[in-house]
Amino acid sequence: MEKIQQLKERFDAFINGVDFIKVPSGLYDPIAYTVLQKGKRLRPMLCLLACDMFGGEFNEAKYPALALETAHNFTLIHDDIMDQAPLRRGKETVYKKWNINQAILSGDAAMVTAFDFAMRTHRPLEVVALLNQVMIEVCEGQQYDMSFETQATVSIPEYLEMIRLKTAVLLATSLKVGAVVAGADEKDQKCLYDFGIAFGMAFQLQDDILDCYSDVAVFGKVTGGDIVENKKTMMYLKALELASPEQRGRLEDLYLGDIAVNSQRKVDEVLALYDELNVKDAVEQLMAEYFRQATVALDAVSLPEERKEHLRRYAEMLSGRQK
Amino acid sequence: MEKIQQLKERFDAFINGVDFIKVPSGLYDPIAYTVLQKGKRLRPMLCLLACDMFGGEFNEAKYPALALETAHNFTLIHDDIMDQAPLRRGKETVYKKWNINQAILSGDAAMVTAFDFAMRTHRPLEVVALLNQVMIEVCEGQQYDMSFETQATVSIPEYLEMIRLKTAVLLATSLKVGAVVAGADEKDQKCLYDFGIAFGMAFQLQDDILDCYSDVAVFGKVTGGDIVENKKTMMYLKALELASPEQRGRLEDLYLGDIAVNSQRKVDEVLALYDELNVKDAVEQLMAEYFRQATVALDAVSLPEERKEHLRRYAEMLSGRQK
Repeated sequence: MEKIQQLKERFDAFINGVDFIKVPSGLYDPIAYTVLQKGKRLRPMLCLLACDMFGGEFNEAKYPALALETAHNFTLIHDDIMDQAPLRRGKETVYKKWNINQAILSGDAAMVTAFDFAMRTHRPLEVVALLNQVMIEVCEGQQYDMSFETQATVSIPEYLEMIRLKTAVLLATSLKVGAVVAGADEKDQKCLYDFGIAFGMAFQLQDDILDCYSDVAVFGKVTGGDIVENKKTMMYLKALELASPEQRGRLEDLYLGDIAVNSQRKVDEVLALYDELNVKDAVEQLMAEYFRQATVALDAVSLPEERKEHLRRYAEMLSGRQK
Repeated sequence: MEKIQQLKERFDAFINGVDFIKVPSGLYDPIAYTVLQKGKRLRPMLCLLACDMFGGEFNEAKYPALALETAHNFTLIHDDIMDQAPLRRGKETVYKKWNINQAILSGDAAMVTAFDFAMRTHRPLEVVALLNQVMIEVCEGQQYDMSFETQATVSIPEYLEMIRLKTAVLLATSLKVGAVVAGADEKDQKCLYDFGIAFGMAFQLQDDILDCYSDVAVFGKVTGGDIVENKKTMMYLKALELASPEQRGRLEDLYLGDIAVNSQRKVDEVLALYDELNVKDAVEQLMAEYFRQATVALDAVSLPEERKEHLRRYAEMLSGRQK
């Protein structure tokens, strides 16, 4: 636990010392606003923990970790425009606080900046190549996510592939980057990547659950936001799977808006249906299965157990998160 | 001339063979639509001509050239959203043909793809670093361009700095990338870069003129588009400089919209004022000065004249362009 805390503090100190405020301020202020927000810093932490695990130097991993965080924030800035999301981490999103054009352009600059950070390490080519590969996958994931909104039916495998691309690959790549920087061999890089995919899938399923049941003050987003926006999350897809024809009809009507209801009533009715069907339990089971797969992948890393301990604890800690 | 034609045909053949059509098609179709449009391919051509000039291989420069073209198209896709431009190269812009969200996301993917292409050469680190540097400058240029729309006054030096960032640096970098790939020394890289800056400034000033006087069928954009959108181009700024207080008042009223006029009447009245003031001549003189500076920079490259001939001709050819 001390190691986790220590890496977090070291990274926070590092990121707070990076000069994000440049001219023209219109371009850079939204980047600083987003990247410097207090948060879990999940991607940098995974990168730093992986690097540390293989005996790598913090100083070689810190810029790649920052590249991953900046690239992630680029996707948030643009996704929030596309999703018309007003809140993120309890604060106004960039396009709300500034405007759409500013959010497009600052997001672009954040992405370019991420590539600049990715090169500041002793293995720049590998890190840039990994960042490149993962960012195109994240774009593909977002494309599927957008397409699902207008697609009549989405299967559970389609949904899982979407969240793999949109969320899991970036967590997996964060771990792999840390391993690469520390000089881990390819087999171990792959184990960590696999750990990250499984962990990332669990993490996103947890997000789907939290969106329905968490407290807005804790979660930092609007509770039931996915329901309001008709997002076909795992909660919704599991509900359809478990529903009787009558329940299925009710849920589809609520989502397709054939029944005129206001947002809050819609959220309440959908949640009531989820409760009837024990959807939360079903998604939690699936989530637990992914956490189990993650454990198996971590077990396969060819290091003594004590070296894996911090990453294992970190993942366990997150599996119980409320935000 | 034959060499220019030959490089253009070789690059066209290469780009048409690149697999832009992938799944999800929603993400990749707009990229293919934009990148594969027939056009001057100015940035790739500058890169290839520079590489050829120093005896470099086409095959080492083709992917960097494609990276520059793809990065340029990324900026077009996003700029057209911000500028609400309906037409580009005589065709519907991406956000018009698809929608804003699709244009944001496909633009993002184009940018990431550009970095992927940039690595496919024998000097990937240098090319990625150059692409990185230039793309952040282009974002800064676009930021200034946007800010100028709401800024009460813009000085001519401010405008020149904006077009340097928004347009000239990418042309200059295209040349430098070609030189780097061909193994030119730093002094020659810098001469070519300087040539590109001066040439790029002239090129943009020419664009400002063409926006006012070209035929839409030839130019591919709406004639007078800059005037309709109240863009403070060099035509506008030169007019303000040359105007009497009365004329200045009329021009500002037309731009600030204190007089209610429809678009066409506004364009006609602004153009009439430009004619009264001989603004076109004044901007053409400035443009000629930049072309002269470009010539001086090219003269300074340490190669025999016959090796510079193609690039020189190419620049001359473009200085007389109608689109």
